Amino acid sequence: MAFICSATWTAKAGEEQTVLDAIENLAPASRMEPGNLYYQPYQDPSDPSVFRIFEVYTDEDAFKAHGQTEHFEKWALGQAIPALASREREFYETLNA
Amino acid sequence: MAFICSATWTAKAGEEQTVLDAIENLAPASRMEPGNLYYQPYQDPSDPSVFRIFEVYTDEDAFKAHGQTEHFEKWALGQAIPALASREREFYETLNA
Repeated sequence: MAFICSATWTAKAGEEQTVLDAIENLAPASRMEPGNLYYQPYQDPSDPSVFRIFEVYTDEDAFKAHGQTEHFEKWALGQAIPALASREREFYETLNA
Repeated sequence: MAFICSATWTAKAGEEQTVLDAIENLAPASRMEPGNLYYQPYQDPSDPSVFRIFEVYTDEDAFKAHGQTEHFEKWALGQAIPALASREREFYETLNA
């Protein structure tokens, strides 16, 4: 079983580009982490203020390590999260199928 | 941009194994489709009647082709879906990040 974080980030009005820019930097760096299996930002094109990220890690420890990385601190904590009106995260496990 | 289907399948009471079995057959076959980029079933372990699938296809046509495959007809339409209390699907686009 791998660990899943399904994140939903809603940008403050006018901050969409700030959040998108952060995600464009955060995504490739996150994929390079040894514990990351998948990292996909996505969006409903009709709702450009809401950013979603489907993230899969080898286990919960790998997810926690993600939160301690330099790139997370710079691009998530430093840039995206202050520009968000709301931030939701749901946690799941993969099914071995 | 790739096409995303985020599916949420809730099994009828007592039908969890029927749905899981269908997914265990549907997943590997779906990944073999030329237009499939990613296919991951997952679950909240505390809520075993709800099955989620994160699916990524090259485009919407590839997603539609998925719905016409033998394995979808056999395992989704034929086995899982009749055993569901509810079936939700949300559609998105990947962000190029």
